[in-house]
Amino acid sequence: MASSSKKLNYAVIGTGALGGYYGGMLARAGCNVHFLFHSDYEFVKENGLQVDSVNGNFVINPVNAYDSTPLMPVCDVILVCLKTMNNYLLKDLLPPLLHKDTVIILMQNGLGIEEELAQHFPQQSIAGGMAFICSSRVGDGHIAHYDYGSLRIGFHQRENDEIGEQIRDDFTQAGIAIEMVPDLNQARWQKLVWNVPYNGMTVVLSTTTDRLMKNPDSRRLVRDLMMEVINAARCCNAQIGEDFVETMLKFTDAMTPYAPSMKLDYDSKRPMEIQAIYTNPVKTALKAGFEMKKVAVVEQELRFLQSMY
Amino acid sequence: MASSSKKLNYAVIGTGALGGYYGGMLARAGCNVHFLFHSDYEFVKENGLQVDSVNGNFVINPVNAYDSTPLMPVCDVILVCLKTMNNYLLKDLLPPLLHKDTVIILMQNGLGIEEELAQHFPQQSIAGGMAFICSSRVGDGHIAHYDYGSLRIGFHQRENDEIGEQIRDDFTQAGIAIEMVPDLNQARWQKLVWNVPYNGMTVVLSTTTDRLMKNPDSRRLVRDLMMEVINAARCCNAQIGEDFVETMLKFTDAMTPYAPSMKLDYDSKRPMEIQAIYTNPVKTALKAGFEMKKVAVVEQELRFLQSMY
Repeated sequence: MASSSKKLNYAVIGTGALGGYYGGMLARAGCNVHFLFHSDYEFVKENGLQVDSVNGNFVINPVNAYDSTPLMPVCDVILVCLKTMNNYLLKDLLPPLLHKDTVIILMQNGLGIEEELAQHFPQQSIAGGMAFICSSRVGDGHIAHYDYGSLRIGFHQRENDEIGEQIRDDFTQAGIAIEMVPDLNQARWQKLVWNVPYNGMTVVLSTTTDRLMKNPDSRRLVRDLMMEVINAARCCNAQIGEDFVETMLKFTDAMTPYAPSMKLDYDSKRPMEIQAIYTNPVKTALKAGFEMKKVAVVEQELRFLQSMY
Repeated sequence: MASSSKKLNYAVIGTGALGGYYGGMLARAGCNVHFLFHSDYEFVKENGLQVDSVNGNFVINPVNAYDSTPLMPVCDVILVCLKTMNNYLLKDLLPPLLHKDTVIILMQNGLGIEEELAQHFPQQSIAGGMAFICSSRVGDGHIAHYDYGSLRIGFHQRENDEIGEQIRDDFTQAGIAIEMVPDLNQARWQKLVWNVPYNGMTVVLSTTTDRLMKNPDSRRLVRDLMMEVINAARCCNAQIGEDFVETMLKFTDAMTPYAPSMKLDYDSKRPMEIQAIYTNPVKTALKAGFEMKKVAVVEQELRFLQSMY
């Protein structure tokens, strides 16, 4: 139990669909949460942060809002909720927030992102967070939460059990189902089993998850891509049972029709997370001797589509 | 030499981008060509058949035009220029045109189409024709020919050298570069090396051949798909050298920016030739022990897109 510990200071770096929801939930439960905003800063200072959740709407007002990390306090936990293509900013954004035991949690999709961050912060405690959530930013300081919301967190380096327990307690208190996982690599690959087919296919085929599931050909394609991810994972020391494919298909069948974040990015002509979700897994698997032939097709298609913006 | 033979009677079944061009060229050169029209019939009876060719425009008027095969004479050579998904009509369309030595030439793309026709006409001479041409139907009785135009013909069954020579002479006289190939299976796979990447990718990525070639990712995807076709072909007793990939890439680099027939079909919400160009090769290769993983992705994507019409 972490009952004797002091209250944790949280920083949310990038307050969008993910950071706004999880940070908002923590703040509502009484945690100290410091939010970094970009374009929404002025709006949120004036109007607060609004979360329209399937589990009940709420507003955080006032918000500990900042538009620059040097203005923020040193924090114990940093929830990085940027898009992965902005991770190059972290080496400059994070130092003002760090003490020696600060845990940086990359609440992002894809593979190889903790390794990259570790090059800049080799002594720091780094973890990965995998959110199973359907949410989106629908306006200035305004987040919509449609479905799910559970979180899995695993350490990449300098595992810190005490602070890990406190994080788990805080999220649990805030009403978020959280699981601390012992094997981040396996959890990252597991998350890819969903992300690889649905992110890319909704973009390439201009559609939503429900339509992909209804059509027998695209459903087979989704399944094939999932199997390829599982086979690649196996070569990368991440064991995922083949029955996980059926679990993910059923999970998606039961979902509200959904456009994953990559589809929203594409529709708004924003850069897509191709590197973290496609290129890094393809390269990592290839190094381990496995060629992700089908996933590479989707990767190349996405790169072409992005170049046509 | 076939100089002693009587003049051949040609039938063109389906007078569109292909049938209109090749039939038109033969008719202009003085061959007996009988054209089956569908929606253009009345228009062509009145106005003739217009071919705007990169090599010079011409009009055939009057045209031996028909709207029903029982009204057509028996022919020596039948150029089937339908889309392959309409080949189920052939067992009813062709019998009025046939004598025992009539050669049916499937001027179509894809694999396995001669085999299918042979089930209905096991005694008939059947050949395949592969057109390397950029042309399209731009209006009623109006064909535009943009580029290229050479033809390769190979027999599938009941090879007929005499009539083969006459066909070659007639096309040559008409100004069409024609080659009689000894191995239809090899020629069909060779044609797929172009058709598989460009037909599907222009549809899935909503683009044209030139853009696919300019972007390094799509260019690599095109190359990967070509290599997979060559590897599949090898397992199906069709040897194609790997240098053919470079030949096809250069050929396409030099082409006028082009939307292949499948892209035109997709844009007009007409059925696409997925079965002949994708499904049949994938199945044939699989039977021979080779899994076309990348091509199967494109196949499934195309089937999904077609289902969304």
